[in-house]
Amino acid sequence: MSWDLPDSISIREVGPRDGLQPEAPVSVGARVRLVRSLVAAGVVDVEAAAFVSPKAVPAMAGADEVFAGLAGDSGARRWALVPNVKGAELARAAGADALTVTVSASETYSQANVNQSTDESVEAVGAIVEAAGDLEIDTVISCAFGSPYDEAIGPFDVAHIVERVQEAGSTHITLADTTGIATPERVADVITAVGPRVRLHLHDTRGTALTNAFAALLLGVAAFDTAVGGLGGSPFAAGAGGNLATEDLVHLCDGLGIDTGIDLEAMVAIAQDVGGLVGRPVSSRLANVLGS
Amino acid sequence: MSWDLPDSISIREVGPRDGLQPEAPVSVGARVRLVRSLVAAGVVDVEAAAFVSPKAVPAMAGADEVFAGLAGDSGARRWALVPNVKGAELARAAGADALTVTVSASETYSQANVNQSTDESVEAVGAIVEAAGDLEIDTVISCAFGSPYDEAIGPFDVAHIVERVQEAGSTHITLADTTGIATPERVADVITAVGPRVRLHLHDTRGTALTNAFAALLLGVAAFDTAVGGLGGSPFAAGAGGNLATEDLVHLCDGLGIDTGIDLEAMVAIAQDVGGLVGRPVSSRLANVLGS
Repeated sequence: MSWDLPDSISIREVGPRDGLQPEAPVSVGARVRLVRSLVAAGVVDVEAAAFVSPKAVPAMAGADEVFAGLAGDSGARRWALVPNVKGAELARAAGADALTVTVSASETYSQANVNQSTDESVEAVGAIVEAAGDLEIDTVISCAFGSPYDEAIGPFDVAHIVERVQEAGSTHITLADTTGIATPERVADVITAVGPRVRLHLHDTRGTALTNAFAALLLGVAAFDTAVGGLGGSPFAAGAGGNLATEDLVHLCDGLGIDTGIDLEAMVAIAQDVGGLVGRPVSSRLANVLGS
Repeated sequence: MSWDLPDSISIREVGPRDGLQPEAPVSVGARVRLVRSLVAAGVVDVEAAAFVSPKAVPAMAGADEVFAGLAGDSGARRWALVPNVKGAELARAAGADALTVTVSASETYSQANVNQSTDESVEAVGAIVEAAGDLEIDTVISCAFGSPYDEAIGPFDVAHIVERVQEAGSTHITLADTTGIATPERVADVITAVGPRVRLHLHDTRGTALTNAFAALLLGVAAFDTAVGGLGGSPFAAGAGGNLATEDLVHLCDGLGIDTGIDLEAMVAIAQDVGGLVGRPVSSRLANVLGS
């Protein structure tokens, strides 16, 4: 064994939320079945839906129905993305187990995406924590590895935001490479500043997501967001490609002897089904090779 | 800087040979122009053609004309792939600067690909070295990271082939992941057995080529074969995807402060042109993002 790597990692599957969000809406039934198949493949954390305006994000309409459909299920923690206190209240009432909230390290992206400043978003985290009661809160810091808008965002700028949202009560931190511009060097710089006890949310816009994940594993990071088939991309950011594919990370970890708890063959089969759901083959090369 | 990495690497561009080989034939003029544009972008080693049967590989017909077209040029070492002594003589007469020959670590692949055993291929290297005069010889060991045919090929089996072809007079060694099944762990095992003074030739069948290249860089490997746009794949091996894209490796190295001598922007522009040449967008995500 040449590498000093974690024995096991946590994968949060974000396909049903970040993955389907930019797609044409699919039925609540299909979304519930997708979550169930992911859990059957070994997923224990899944972002099932977002409590956002159905006008702004039509594919996320009916988040409460998705959670209602999953009400009797067990075996996984079901996360909901919420943009504000109202979303947190709806998610809690609908039966979400845990919440993700977003703060952007990029002012420009923050204004474009949610029409508020980074400071305002940090304050909102505090209010959401209050409204969430005993639900765990993960703050996802977007553009943590650089901005697409030519702003200087240094590693310690990100570390400063991390401190502030932790002070506001966020129990978990995820660093997102929203537009897929991270490099292994950049990942190292940010993880050195923030520490390895964070989750990474990587996008594969430039075909670098898996390489960045490997770099992060070498730095001791042991938690990742991924989406089956490499689904996803932000509808608000030009050129934002799909998420790191779950099967790609599981395949890498299987080869490195890192336990993910997820069955690769089952995940590849789901990726094939998801291709049918979104009406095109998924972007993951692995899924297309192993599934053929 | 978190990583112990080479200051610079050697990239041999194999797009005009391994890249175009499985495609519908393009004109000699287009092949000459492709080589010239690659050299203009900073490439100093380029595999320009293969002296193989035009019946078996129609896209490589006219290898002598390609070299004739490049006769007056300078600035790069032009490699030719040769399968046997006759090919070596033709390549030498045509003005090739250096030769690549292939030996497969997989018996089954060797029989399927060139209808001879691995032992016979190793012997052929000696004969080609004799015929090549003062030309440098690089032996490319295919299936060095595992066979698609369920054979056990251990790291020291590969090391043993390396020793034998070095004894036969091969001045360079390249280890090829012909069917894209390498993993970082497997790369580490083989490089530990063989040593880092080899070139890697990685395929991206499963979306893992760049990650494997990063793993190799961390192990001290400082030479790679790549193809502009991620062109390529073996016409003899089912499921063999394209090569590691030159622009993907240059982008990674640029981010890591590793000198490649190659201009990323120029390489992305060539990748776009190559898309026109082969009649479809190239597979490199980076080229499609940066070129759009």
